[in-house]
Amino acid sequence: MGDSTARTDKEEPLGLVPRLKGQGYAREDVEHRRRWVEEKTACRLAHVGSHSIPTEAMRGNVENPVGAAQVPLGVAGPLVVRGEHARGSFYVPLATTEGALVRSYERGMAAIARAGGAEARACLDENRVSPVFAFGTVAEAHDFALGLGEVFESLRAAAEATTRHGKLLRVEPRAVGREVIVDFCYYTADAQGMNMIARATEAACRWLVGARRARDYLLMTGHCSEKRASAKLFAGGKGKRVVAGALLPARVVKTYLHATPEGFRDLWRRTVVGHLHAGAVGYNGHYANGLAALFIACGQDAANVVNSSVGVTNFEVTEAGDLYASVTLASLTVATVGGGTGQGTARECLEMLGCAGAGRAPKFAEIVAATLLAGELSMGAALASGEFVEAHETYGRNRPEESNQPEESEQT
Amino acid sequence: MGDSTARTDKEEPLGLVPRLKGQGYAREDVEHRRRWVEEKTACRLAHVGSHSIPTEAMRGNVENPVGAAQVPLGVAGPLVVRGEHARGSFYVPLATTEGALVRSYERGMAAIARAGGAEARACLDENRVSPVFAFGTVAEAHDFALGLGEVFESLRAAAEATTRHGKLLRVEPRAVGREVIVDFCYYTADAQGMNMIARATEAACRWLVGARRARDYLLMTGHCSEKRASAKLFAGGKGKRVVAGALLPARVVKTYLHATPEGFRDLWRRTVVGHLHAGAVGYNGHYANGLAALFIACGQDAANVVNSSVGVTNFEVTEAGDLYASVTLASLTVATVGGGTGQGTARECLEMLGCAGAGRAPKFAEIVAATLLAGELSMGAALASGEFVEAHETYGRNRPEESNQPEESEQT
Amino acid sequence: MGDSTARTDKEEPLGLVPRLKGQGYAREDVEHRRRWVEEKTACRLAHVGSHSIPTEAMRGNVENPVGAAQVPLGVAGPLVVRGEHARGSFYVPLATTEGALVRSYERGMAAIARAGGAEARACLDENRVSPVFAFGTVAEAHDFALGLGEVFESLRAAAEATTRHGKLLRVEPRAVGREVIVDFCYYTADAQGMNMIARATEAACRWLVGARRARDYLLMTGHCSEKRASAKLFAGGKGKRVVAGALLPARVVKTYLHATPEGFRDLWRRTVVGHLHAGAVGYNGHYANGLAALFIACGQDAANVVNSSVGVTNFEVTEAGDLYASVTLASLTVATVGGGTGQGTARECLEMLGCAGAGRAPKFAEIVAATLLAGELSMGAALASGEFVEAHETYGRNRPEESNQPEESEQT
Amino acid sequence: MGDSTARTDKEEPLGLVPRLKGQGYAREDVEHRRRWVEEKTACRLAHVGSHSIPTEAMRGNVENPVGAAQVPLGVAGPLVVRGEHARGSFYVPLATTEGALVRSYERGMAAIARAGGAEARACLDENRVSPVFAFGTVAEAHDFALGLGEVFESLRAAAEATTRHGKLLRVEPRAVGREVIVDFCYYTADAQGMNMIARATEAACRWLVGARRARDYLLMTGHCSEKRASAKLFAGGKGKRVVAGALLPARVVKTYLHATPEGFRDLWRRTVVGHLHAGAVGYNGHYANGLAALFIACGQDAANVVNSSVGVTNFEVTEAGDLYASVTLASLTVATVGGGTGQGTARECLEMLGCAGAGRAPKFAEIVAATLLAGELSMGAALASGEFVEAHETYGRNRPEESNQPEESEQT
Repeated sequence: MGDSTARTDKEEPLGLVPRLKGQGYAREDVEHRRRWVEEKTACRLAHVGSHSIPTEAMRGNVENPVGAAQVPLGVAGPLVVRGEHARGSFYVPLATTEGALVRSYERGMAAIARAGGAEARACLDENRVSPVFAFGTVAEAHDFALGLGEVFESLRAAAEATTRHGKLLRVEPRAVGREVIVDFCYYTADAQGMNMIARATEAACRWLVGARRARDYLLMTGHCSEKRASAKLFAGGKGKRVVAGALLPARVVKTYLHATPEGFRDLWRRTVVGHLHAGAVGYNGHYANGLAALFIACGQDAANVVNSSVGVTNFEVTEAGDLYASVTLASLTVATVGGGTGQGTARECLEMLGCAGAGRAPKFAEIVAATLLAGELSMGAALASGEFVEAHETYGRNRPEESNQPEESEQT
Repeated sequence: MGDSTARTDKEEPLGLVPRLKGQGYAREDVEHRRRWVEEKTACRLAHVGSHSIPTEAMRGNVENPVGAAQVPLGVAGPLVVRGEHARGSFYVPLATTEGALVRSYERGMAAIARAGGAEARACLDENRVSPVFAFGTVAEAHDFALGLGEVFESLRAAAEATTRHGKLLRVEPRAVGREVIVDFCYYTADAQGMNMIARATEAACRWLVGARRARDYLLMTGHCSEKRASAKLFAGGKGKRVVAGALLPARVVKTYLHATPEGFRDLWRRTVVGHLHAGAVGYNGHYANGLAALFIACGQDAANVVNSSVGVTNFEVTEAGDLYASVTLASLTVATVGGGTGQGTARECLEMLGCAGAGRAPKFAEIVAATLLAGELSMGAALASGEFVEAHETYGRNRPEESNQPEESEQT
Repeated sequence: MGDSTARTDKEEPLGLVPRLKGQGYAREDVEHRRRWVEEKTACRLAHVGSHSIPTEAMRGNVENPVGAAQVPLGVAGPLVVRGEHARGSFYVPLATTEGALVRSYERGMAAIARAGGAEARACLDENRVSPVFAFGTVAEAHDFALGLGEVFESLRAAAEATTRHGKLLRVEPRAVGREVIVDFCYYTADAQGMNMIARATEAACRWLVGARRARDYLLMTGHCSEKRASAKLFAGGKGKRVVAGALLPARVVKTYLHATPEGFRDLWRRTVVGHLHAGAVGYNGHYANGLAALFIACGQDAANVVNSSVGVTNFEVTEAGDLYASVTLASLTVATVGGGTGQGTARECLEMLGCAGAGRAPKFAEIVAATLLAGELSMGAALASGEFVEAHETYGRNRPEESNQPEESEQT
Repeated sequence: MGDSTARTDKEEPLGLVPRLKGQGYAREDVEHRRRWVEEKTACRLAHVGSHSIPTEAMRGNVENPVGAAQVPLGVAGPLVVRGEHARGSFYVPLATTEGALVRSYERGMAAIARAGGAEARACLDENRVSPVFAFGTVAEAHDFALGLGEVFESLRAAAEATTRHGKLLRVEPRAVGREVIVDFCYYTADAQGMNMIARATEAACRWLVGARRARDYLLMTGHCSEKRASAKLFAGGKGKRVVAGALLPARVVKTYLHATPEGFRDLWRRTVVGHLHAGAVGYNGHYANGLAALFIACGQDAANVVNSSVGVTNFEVTEAGDLYASVTLASLTVATVGGGTGQGTARECLEMLGCAGAGRAPKFAEIVAATLLAGELSMGAALASGEFVEAHETYGRNRPEESNQPEESEQT
């Protein structure tokens, strides 16, 4: 667009995107708006307009819609999972523009499959909102915190009156000066649930004010660490705590990953030291890559990648000389209902995993954890074996002309 | 899909996604692969197949392509920026499925526009890779670190021989026990550059081994904090350090944000305390929301949201009683060339901002920072004014039937 | 000493400090050992030998004793505390060699006293040890964690059989890969209790092995954060969670602290930003100064200053324009029995505070928190008013000749 | 003391500790003050009064002196160091009341001695103060930061005019919103130097105001992390960066530490995971124990234990099956001149190490690092071998009656 000088004359209209009837989700409204933007910015938005999601279906997911972004989608698999909820072989949809990413995850999945699959377990499944309440003195704040347990049933009633699915499990008050931060901890079933529990918590806060237990509150403090990285996330309670692990025979490590169990162990030690010196939150190879690709494919809230990528990868050599690899995700935020999960490509990708709809979130969580395990194995192997750059040259945009066959091809 | 028992008989084929000639980027190859997945998983992938990006154009961005994910795209604006590189009014594409997000950013942009726009400055623009070198003793490691400066020109020559765009600026060694982590710090122009500098650094590492300065190295340690959250990111050097700020008259705060400067100040104090108690990295309202939506729209690597969301938002009341708001992003990773930026909807979205192609990354960085500032203002206002839940009910999926006009409509 | 070349001939004796009968706590043994060291190092240890603590009384507190270190001891007060356990005016012993420290704390105490005293409350009082248990698979680890609740009574019996004072309150398991870290949470009455609960936890671990619930464990992982800085400490459970706060009228802030409530507020905002950018754990002015001086004076374990200094200071301007200041200490480790608390100067200093012996630890904790509040006020005032350097020049070692009267003198 | 109700009548005297002529450092003044405190608190301070430090010598180290705290002092050794500055065998003074601490460090020292000693290297030696400068807009702040380099010589002149020993090495500005935090980085020779560089920095700040480059500043923000734990400390610049390491043959590990190299490796992996899950800053066994004991003995500022304990311990098994152990201290704050180092027991303890006076700080730093290495080996061994509780029962206050000879005694 032309970078003209900013015009902010208070008397003039601001130039907001046009307001249309019913918020403008009709097909012609979206087209009209897109043309308006094209004109304003002197661009052609042909690809943006080439979407298959019905415009009316975008209501509730986006405002001022002009079309859809398209992200290339690849498939990696088979991912063999032996979870409580996910059992079997899966083909995992990954939306990304990072060359080599799909191939890398696929390589880890092949190694896991040859090792008999990855175990996975979800240990905790909660979500929380953390309002703060203000008082006149440290003593008043202290008394409020001490007395909160007495009114828990009333808080629960107020909170749960606003939602069919959310359950208030407990409240955890923490006095800070003359204020009290309270973690309201919920079970939100298969939804991400943040809007649901924000509403429920607001109802509970209002009850506390009505009951003269508090005068003043702020609904959110960030203490719950939604869409943030924090050490608190390790304690769980923001999404699902999920662990996935696999025992990889040395032979499989060598054949499929071109590395040795000892190489993984040494890599782990050295890179952990790198993380510690960086003041990193947790330790991992590249959780964010797999999470972002899965989340975009499956209609998850991609901003939740930030909290979901807090965890710890572990590589051990067993007494028998094999490799035990695991990932521990402290706060994985996934949903199979609500948000962006119900339509279009997101719905199809969830269906590809057998994870669309109610009752599937724990299964989906186990698949995500096992996918990340595959990615950690592949990234670790590439670094330990010195093949990292080579792999990116083969599959990335700057690869040499000769397009060699993938190394796994003979294994099919 | 059917969750059949895992079959991992070593003699049987694994069931990898079919290998096709030339990696299978022809239109019919992608269709063939998609049908294969549909069959394997008993799903219909109609939406996934409905993309406008040519399949051949996906080469280098994704492997095993089956189509594209579609993410609803809305537009917020006008965002008035007074940067060094970005000057004028912008309409910002946001790909998201989180209802109310676009409206929320738009509201902040309206307030900023009425305040005369947001200043923005990019202060630092680097990227880095952090290999580790192993030695026999603490003394050897110490000597290596001390002597690295002597061979900098050789390292630079080796590194830069692999790339036209990357420039090795300096090396920063840090002895850790008997090993030395070295940050190789580069300027990568308008590219995200991670693959570029990984290759360059590998060349430099090999030079060190060839020159018998080192025997053994591991290319990456995570010390550089690529796609991770870490406190080290505050020191900069992973992407761009960008600051955006705006002075909002109390009147604008009241009219457009339904809040007061003092309310923002109080909100800041309380929520900072929440962040500190969570052990959060930095402080922000919801950087990840804006970043994820912008990154998906504009073909950025969405996994970089993790490091890019490390920063600090600040709200001050000025002596005149107005609000000064700012965001400081320590490590914003954005690109206008390479990766996913060159095609399809991503290219169109970058063009919408006047940011497609070489020489535009600093401009794009300033726009991103100003966008996040708008989001912080809107989120802060919603919390300070107690309207957070209400806004989500109006625009989210669970809104009441009556579809009221947006509050800003009379301002257009 | 002479820096001779290291002699490490394996056949020769090492040159360990002489072993004496009964570990050598008799007066002549300590003298003999001191003379041996004097000879070995060619030093005179006259001051070291000038102690009043009986040598036999050092048994259990130190090995290879040669005397005592002397640290100058000053007194600051009156500290007016309105706690649950500590009520009244206290004179606080501070052992330090940092010039101006005592005067600085005293100044804060004077301001607090004029403001009617500091409220203080202890909210939580626990200590914990965090062993880790190893298993063969993620599933086994998961099952162990799930089943731990069933055997809690047996664990409690095993743990409490080793101690008269420690009470096992609960266990908190956390699966990490194929291992499980378990926080064993205790109440330890008035003792620091770490040795007590290490022994108790070992007994519980052995019970788990005996009951075939676990095969292998490691008693400590650092997860409990004893003598470390960690974000986990904010969740409490390592020592006492204590909050102290005071409302200081603007007039008192001006007269006693030469500052304004608004100046404190602005200081807080700016310095919090500094802490966030440093990746600091929590926020404070100089907790460690007061803690170290109090801990050395009162026979506390000075290494616990590291975990005890994790907290958050808060400065607010009230609606009436006054200052509300508070400190929140997340994991204050103090004891009034055991360790170094029973003898010599430590006992006298605890008596000075009415805190010697059983039943006094909560009182002591409140006094410590109020002392730190005084230090935060004084440090904050010195910075906000620009008098920091001046104060150190007046009281530190490099002061000018003219020895001016303390600023508070006219206020007595 | 009697816990009478707080008396804060504004008209009455506060009850401050008596003000005496010349600040009251004469022997009779200290006695008078001590008697006043005894009377006020109804205590006897006999031990407190039994010190050998002359009262006049306390001036500059403490205000309102009443005597001295005594801390039991033991000696551990021989510590064999092969540093650049420290070479030879040392007997290390440790002031502590934690039973078993001295014996534990001694055990590690014996193992190190039998292994031929510990290498040590100091890599960086700086200190810093971090003021913040306020501006009207983001652009002004940006310009200030950019232009700071131009006036560096003037800043240096202003800063160094205030000190004979401090050297301003460079300034590192960081824009944060419309403010700029500047790290002023100094070399402070053998002094801790914080007061020295605070004064120097204030002079530089005033120069900037005088030169109209800045209007407003705050001298300290905590960004430098003095006496705090922060991830920033890993980047160095707050005290000395020191590394110590030793290669311990498997035989020595077994004989002296009752453990195996593999046991150490496994311990490291498991406990690192514990630290990561706690959000700990760095990784160590118990640095704070050795640091606190050494600092109290040697007249260091004990509050600096907080920043000095930020580091990383590493245990590796070598190809030959031996153990390589190291400690990396990122920000060790030690001094051999100034503060509490010049007199009494502190001076004697520094002399014991050949570290009293100018030119000895790097040597002292290497000794401290090697001492901590000994402590890490001993603690690690106790945990890996399962002897941790046993050791504390033998040497702590709650030991059984039979006082067995130390295990090392036969090795002398």
